[in-house]
Amino acid sequence: MKVAKHGGNIYEAAMERGIAIEEILDFSANINPLGIPNSLKEALIQNIHSIERYPDPDYKALVGAIAAYHGVNEQWITVGNGATEIIFALAASLNSKNSLILAPTFAEYERALLKAGSEVHYYYLKEDNDFQIDEGFKKMLNPEIDLVVLCNPNNPTGQFLNRQKMMEILQQCRVFGIRLVVDEAFMDFVEAGEEESMIACMEEYNHLYVIRALTKFFSIPGLRLGYAVASNENILRRIRDNREPWSINSLAALAGEVVLKDQAYIRETKDWLHKEKNKFYEELNAIEGIKAYKPEANYIFFSYNKDERCLKEALLTKKILIRSCGNYKNLTNRFYRIAIKDRSSNEKLIEALKEVIYES
Amino acid sequence: MKVAKHGGNIYEAAMERGIAIEEILDFSANINPLGIPNSLKEALIQNIHSIERYPDPDYKALVGAIAAYHGVNEQWITVGNGATEIIFALAASLNSKNSLILAPTFAEYERALLKAGSEVHYYYLKEDNDFQIDEGFKKMLNPEIDLVVLCNPNNPTGQFLNRQKMMEILQQCRVFGIRLVVDEAFMDFVEAGEEESMIACMEEYNHLYVIRALTKFFSIPGLRLGYAVASNENILRRIRDNREPWSINSLAALAGEVVLKDQAYIRETKDWLHKEKNKFYEELNAIEGIKAYKPEANYIFFSYNKDERCLKEALLTKKILIRSCGNYKNLTNRFYRIAIKDRSSNEKLIEALKEVIYES
Repeated sequence: MKVAKHGGNIYEAAMERGIAIEEILDFSANINPLGIPNSLKEALIQNIHSIERYPDPDYKALVGAIAAYHGVNEQWITVGNGATEIIFALAASLNSKNSLILAPTFAEYERALLKAGSEVHYYYLKEDNDFQIDEGFKKMLNPEIDLVVLCNPNNPTGQFLNRQKMMEILQQCRVFGIRLVVDEAFMDFVEAGEEESMIACMEEYNHLYVIRALTKFFSIPGLRLGYAVASNENILRRIRDNREPWSINSLAALAGEVVLKDQAYIRETKDWLHKEKNKFYEELNAIEGIKAYKPEANYIFFSYNKDERCLKEALLTKKILIRSCGNYKNLTNRFYRIAIKDRSSNEKLIEALKEVIYES
Repeated sequence: MKVAKHGGNIYEAAMERGIAIEEILDFSANINPLGIPNSLKEALIQNIHSIERYPDPDYKALVGAIAAYHGVNEQWITVGNGATEIIFALAASLNSKNSLILAPTFAEYERALLKAGSEVHYYYLKEDNDFQIDEGFKKMLNPEIDLVVLCNPNNPTGQFLNRQKMMEILQQCRVFGIRLVVDEAFMDFVEAGEEESMIACMEEYNHLYVIRALTKFFSIPGLRLGYAVASNENILRRIRDNREPWSINSLAALAGEVVLKDQAYIRETKDWLHKEKNKFYEELNAIEGIKAYKPEANYIFFSYNKDERCLKEALLTKKILIRSCGNYKNLTNRFYRIAIKDRSSNEKLIEALKEVIYES
C-alpha cells in the first residue's frame, strides 16, 4: 500500500521547480483564505506555554466544546489528530469485510479500509451523469456489504446529497445491516450546512457515523484536528481503547475550544463564500474547453476538453498550483480541482487560465 | 485492551479535587523544568501562520535537521506524532510473533505489541537486584523470540545499560535473529548520552531500531514529536507507506528544526541536571522509609517501606502530584517515580514528604 498523493503537496511542486513556497499561489488545498481566526491567533500566543504539559488524555474541554457546538451528548464525540486519524480509527474499529465507497472520492478511505482488512467495492460515478449519486447506487446496497463510506460534499467532485437523500440511503443501509460513515469534512462550507448535516439524526440511528474536520473551515490544516460523532458508544469506546495516547497536540485541542465560539469568523466566511462561489464558477465555466461543476463547498471541480494540455503544468510556470485529479480512481488527467480563494487570487487564476488556453 | 493510565494525568487529579491545574506542582511527568527554549518560543510566534498550510507530507526539513544532529543518513530517519506513534508503527511493521519486554517498563510497548498481534513475554526485574538487567536476561533470548524492546534508561526504574552492555545484547540478538528496539526517550538527559546512544552502531546492525523523543528534553510534550533511527530501510519504508498522512503538526515539525540547534539550551539543561540530580537523590534517600534508586536521567524511582500509606494521596492534599507506580506490571503501590525539577520545587517536595512521613 503506497501513500496516496494528495493535493496539498506544494512542497514537492516548489522543490521541483526551485521556487519558494511563499511565491506559489496554491489552489490545490481547500483552505479558507481568510486565514486563522484572530481569536485563535491570540489564544495560541497567550497559551504557548501550554505545550510544556502533556495534553489531557481525555481531551475533556475540547470534547465539551464540540458537543456544545452541535448540541449532542459528550459521549457521542471522539476526537482525532486530523480527520485522517478518525478515518483510520473508524475503519479499524468497524471491522468491515466488504465495504463500498465512491470512485472518485478522498483517497484515504480506501487506504484505511484496505489496512483494516476490508475488501473495497466501488460505485463508479459517471461523467455523463455529472458524477451524481443516482438510483444505481442503491442497487449496490445488499447484505454482502457491511459498510458504506460517503464523502458529502464529495471530494473532489463536489457533488452533494441533501439530508433527505442521505436519509434514504441511511434507511436502506439499516435494512441490510450496513453501517454508514458520512465524512462531512466540508459541510461547514455548505450554505445550509447544519440543516443538511446528518449529526441531527444521530439519536435514532446507531449505525450512522459522521466525521468532521475543523482544519479546512478554520484554516488550521497544520494543527490537525478532526472528530467523529456517533451514538454507538460501543464503537466509540473501541476507538478510544485502541488509540495512541495524546494523539492530538495541545494547541490543536485549544484551537477547537476557541474557534467553534468565533461566530464573527464563521459569518465572515459564509459571506465571503456566498459572494465568491457562483461568480468564480461562472467565470471558470465561460472559458473555452472548461466544464465546471456547480460548487456546494469551497472548491470547484472541472474538466478541460479542448486539447491534451496539462493545465497544472502550464499554470505552474506562472507559479499557480492546482490539483490535477488524474490519480483519482475513475478520473483522468482531464479533471482538476481548485480551491475558491479571495477575489484577487481567483481573478489571477482566471486570467492565467485564459492566457494558457487562448494565447497558445 | 484498555488505555494505559499514564503519569501525567494532572487533569484527572485536578478535577477530582476541584483545584486548578496551575496550582498543582507536578512531579508526575518527566519534563525539563527550564520550559520551552526561547528560540522555539520566538520561532513559534513568528511562524504561527504556518498552520494555515498542510505540513510537508515528507517532513524533509525536519528529517534533515535530525539527520544532521546525529550525523546519520536522512534515509535512516522516520518521524512521528510523539514517540508513541513510532512505537505503534514499529510494532505494526516488525510483525513480531513473540516479543520480550521488561517488567516494569513503559506501558505502551505492551499495548502496541498486543495490538500488532504479538505474544508478549516479560523479563521480571527484581527488587533484590535493584531492578537491574542481569545475566538472567540473556538466558531469555532464544530463537523463539523475534523482537526485544528495551527502554534505556528504563522508565520508571531509571536503570541504565551503557553501550558496551547494550552491544552484548545486540550481538546476542543477532545470533538468534532477534530484532532489538531501544527506546532512548530519556537518553538526552544521560550525562554522556550521545556516547552511550546506540545510534552510532546503526551502520553495522540492521536489526537495531532506536526510538527518540524531543518532547521531554525540550519541554514540548504538548507539541508531540518523536522519531526512529534505523539502517533497515525496508522497515522504515514500510512504516512510511503505512502511516497516516500529516500525522505531525506543522509547529512540532518546526520545533524539531529549531531546538536541535539550540546549543545554549542543551548546555543549560545539562548544567541544571548535573547540579540537581545527586543532591535531590541524596535528600530523598535520607528520608526514613524511602529507598531511592540512583538516577541516570531526569527522574527518580523510589520505594516507600515504612508503612502502608499512599504518598501520592498524602502529597495531593498539599497540591503536589507524584507518579504512583502501582499500575505497572511487577510493581506495587510501594513504588513511586518523580521528575527532577528546579531546586525550589525539589525542596518543596522534600519538605512535604518529611511533613507527611514524620508528622503523622
